[in-house]
Amino acid sequence: MLRRDRLFLAATLTAVFSADLYFILLPKLRSLGRPHSCSCGPGNLSLPRQGGLATPLLSNWTSVPLPDSATPEPADGGSKLEKLFAHTLYNIQTPSLGPEERLLQAEQLIEYYRRKVSRWERHMKLYSEAAAVANISVTEHEVTYDPDASWMKFHLGINRYALYSRDDPAVLQLLKDMQNMAVVSADYTQDEKALKGACDCTQVVKPSGHHLKLALKMKNFAKAMFKPMRQQRDEETPEDSFYFVDFQRHNAEIAAFHLDRILDFQRVPPVAGRLVNVTGEVLQVTHNEDLRAVFFTSPANNTCFFAKCLYVCKTEYAVCGRPDLLEGSLSAYLPGLSIAPRISIPNPWTRSYTFTGREEWEVNPFYCDTVKQLYPYNSGNRLLNIIDMSIFDFLTGNMDRHHYEIFTKFGDEGFLLHLDNARGFGKHSQDETSILAPLSQCCMIKRSTLLRLQLLARSEFRLSDVMRESLEGDPLRPVLTEPHLLALDRRLQKVLRVVQCCEIFMGSCQRITSGSWFWS
Amino acid sequence: MLRRDRLFLAATLTAVFSADLYFILLPKLRSLGRPHSCSCGPGNLSLPRQGGLATPLLSNWTSVPLPDSATPEPADGGSKLEKLFAHTLYNIQTPSLGPEERLLQAEQLIEYYRRKVSRWERHMKLYSEAAAVANISVTEHEVTYDPDASWMKFHLGINRYALYSRDDPAVLQLLKDMQNMAVVSADYTQDEKALKGACDCTQVVKPSGHHLKLALKMKNFAKAMFKPMRQQRDEETPEDSFYFVDFQRHNAEIAAFHLDRILDFQRVPPVAGRLVNVTGEVLQVTHNEDLRAVFFTSPANNTCFFAKCLYVCKTEYAVCGRPDLLEGSLSAYLPGLSIAPRISIPNPWTRSYTFTGREEWEVNPFYCDTVKQLYPYNSGNRLLNIIDMSIFDFLTGNMDRHHYEIFTKFGDEGFLLHLDNARGFGKHSQDETSILAPLSQCCMIKRSTLLRLQLLARSEFRLSDVMRESLEGDPLRPVLTEPHLLALDRRLQKVLRVVQCCEIFMGSCQRITSGSWFWS
Repeated sequence: MLRRDRLFLAATLTAVFSADLYFILLPKLRSLGRPHSCSCGPGNLSLPRQGGLATPLLSNWTSVPLPDSATPEPADGGSKLEKLFAHTLYNIQTPSLGPEERLLQAEQLIEYYRRKVSRWERHMKLYSEAAAVANISVTEHEVTYDPDASWMKFHLGINRYALYSRDDPAVLQLLKDMQNMAVVSADYTQDEKALKGACDCTQVVKPSGHHLKLALKMKNFAKAMFKPMRQQRDEETPEDSFYFVDFQRHNAEIAAFHLDRILDFQRVPPVAGRLVNVTGEVLQVTHNEDLRAVFFTSPANNTCFFAKCLYVCKTEYAVCGRPDLLEGSLSAYLPGLSIAPRISIPNPWTRSYTFTGREEWEVNPFYCDTVKQLYPYNSGNRLLNIIDMSIFDFLTGNMDRHHYEIFTKFGDEGFLLHLDNARGFGKHSQDETSILAPLSQCCMIKRSTLLRLQLLARSEFRLSDVMRESLEGDPLRPVLTEPHLLALDRRLQKVLRVVQCCEIFMGSCQRITSGSWFWS
Repeated sequence: MLRRDRLFLAATLTAVFSADLYFILLPKLRSLGRPHSCSCGPGNLSLPRQGGLATPLLSNWTSVPLPDSATPEPADGGSKLEKLFAHTLYNIQTPSLGPEERLLQAEQLIEYYRRKVSRWERHMKLYSEAAAVANISVTEHEVTYDPDASWMKFHLGINRYALYSRDDPAVLQLLKDMQNMAVVSADYTQDEKALKGACDCTQVVKPSGHHLKLALKMKNFAKAMFKPMRQQRDEETPEDSFYFVDFQRHNAEIAAFHLDRILDFQRVPPVAGRLVNVTGEVLQVTHNEDLRAVFFTSPANNTCFFAKCLYVCKTEYAVCGRPDLLEGSLSAYLPGLSIAPRISIPNPWTRSYTFTGREEWEVNPFYCDTVKQLYPYNSGNRLLNIIDMSIFDFLTGNMDRHHYEIFTKFGDEGFLLHLDNARGFGKHSQDETSILAPLSQCCMIKRSTLLRLQLLARSEFRLSDVMRESLEGDPLRPVLTEPHLLALDRRLQKVLRVVQCCEIFMGSCQRITSGSWFWS
């Protein structure tokens, strides 16, 4: 027993010493060699190329050449998006999946769906009787049981690597269904219901007056979260706004889905834009009295509704149709927590949700060294997944990533879900480099991610061009204004510059301060 | 006793019968004569002229010629404002005032002022000691006792006819003092203090989150209400906003003072614009801990503060300096209620402060007949004063006149104070004709008011031109955007059209429906 303890102590000490040598001493020694060369300034924009540069220290670091890096830009100007998706990088086959690598089994989901349908039918029977007595008129739509429904296929396709495969026809069909299919009921989301109409003013984090999301159910039982338009596309978030009271933007939600797909992450559930008739598709189909009660007609004769928790006073929080039609994003629901549990984990690089507070990562340049030693970031891909997420959030400008979710079934190796992206795309004129702190403080990136970013920086694919093209497919086009699209290219360059600086000065610059040392 | 009762009954019946004959039967008989001629449409814009038209029925009705109606427009384009104020209409001498016609006596006010100064000095002594113990740094300014202070002279000048006389040098000096004089203390207004930090959500009328007004004290004890800028000058109120949750606009407050002076009403206390340093002139001089607690620094490093009643959640309600300087309006305080009591009376044409409610005047075209029979509108000038106020509010577009105030000293014959005009000038592109309901339903106007309106409709004076010129004198120029100035001319034409229609069809058109019959 004593000997085992000693062995353990010796192993721990060796590990700590090795880590110290590796992360602290080695970099310091390296930086002594070139004390004044730390200047990855904005002028130095060329991308990492083969040879000539230091080989990355960490296993996932990469500067390997791209398979077709010499391909000239095509003159015909055909579909860049098609070309991107035809690229070999986007056509790496996932290994065939065993049952344990899939989130759900078909039988399980079909049984779940059947139970839902019969529960709905019982509920409708009772509700119709009650509504007739109370003299409430509710539009009744036929629901259909369809074992081939696109949302079923989407749910069945979720696996340990991603939410869907990019070329899955079920995802395209699901987008179409969310855009067009008849809505049979509308209700508050579980989040809103948990609030029970109260506005928790002790929580500075979530002034839920801004949360006007609703759950809509389609006639084939597809469920989607509706976030209505709160802000015009050309409005920028005021500079004095704290990110945690910023509006949720429906177009950011849509654009984030497309960006995630273009980055080949597939970690954002499908999102489609839709012009929702708030009278016919919300007010007249809801069975929730509370929801019905927040509807009113505005002085301009438009149909409006406002957040439950601010019922009486806050009509200025309302959203209004024109006169009934209102733009919004519809995000596909993931399988229910009862059949596919998820856990929510605090982001190690979360922000302080107070006026003056600061988190450790903002003041400690060695923060990543701490994180690297903590479970679950001390092994596997989890830290690299966090860095992927930070790059994704930096590109959209989303500062509100306080938690992330994973499916419990896939354990620590599961991918990170990029849910709730509506606070991105608030400012096109500003790049919030602090979002990149995980990348710039850890100097690590997945090889696959970097290769795709490098590809998207090239003029023949150019991120803004493929995004523009991809978003053209949404009914609410143009989803993003040009300045937001162009900001994506600028931000991509900044990500690559961080990577480049990490490659060149691994172990020196990135330790000077936290996150914003190249451009501040 | 019995005989007196009978006499009273007979007198009442006679009065009712006469009123009926006069207001109902006579107009109906007149309208029979020209049953199809009720078409004062937008094409018919010429102003009432001498002769040819029906003589107004009511004593105050006028279509007398203007003294210099034939004067051509001057070619030199000199100061229109000076010419306006030099016009004979603007130079009618008020009779010399007896003591009972003045609001305050000099001795009384001086005594009041002395008491204030000595109370302040005692307070400061105690506060400085307490602040030193609590380690709070407060900027201390010298206060001066000045019996010639402009605010004293303004208060002493208030009489039963108006708040001031237009050429009173004390008013000009007071405007300058409010623009420049050192601020010695800042505090919540009594209204805000009465709320005690609570947001009364049962009151849909006043969601006080929008009320960020503060009371500022100058070094000579002049007191002014500071309303900070909430909205850019070129922003219009969204069409779906209810008027009672609209922002209060500092520039509307300034412009309303100038308009009131140009209409020769003098019923709005002096208002000046000022670039207030919210750090040096509010935060550092307040003795109120609650007020200090709502200050914070925004992500853009600007100094901001928000409404007390929404302390925790609602930073989105905050106003921010750049980095400390913030535009605002400063409205001179009236004498305190202890020496010059006022009463607040519901406006008979108040609006419903609910989503769906309607007031009687909105549905009953004969509403004015009811009002005319009620005290205090059944005698004297009160109803004509209400109509003046409605014209003033229509010109600014202010729908929020639920109450009006009068000085109790002057009884029923006192003038109406036009306080709180910050909800005007919200939409330049829309004219809310329902605000004119008192004029269009009663078909009465003061002769003096109509003459001035007619003068201001002429190109040689033109309301927009004199307003533009007058507002040029304010430090926050341009106070109003051009579309708002031009809207004044358009609205003035509409007022005159109502008058014209009343003149022509007295007793017919105006009874068809309420207020909006000419243009709807």
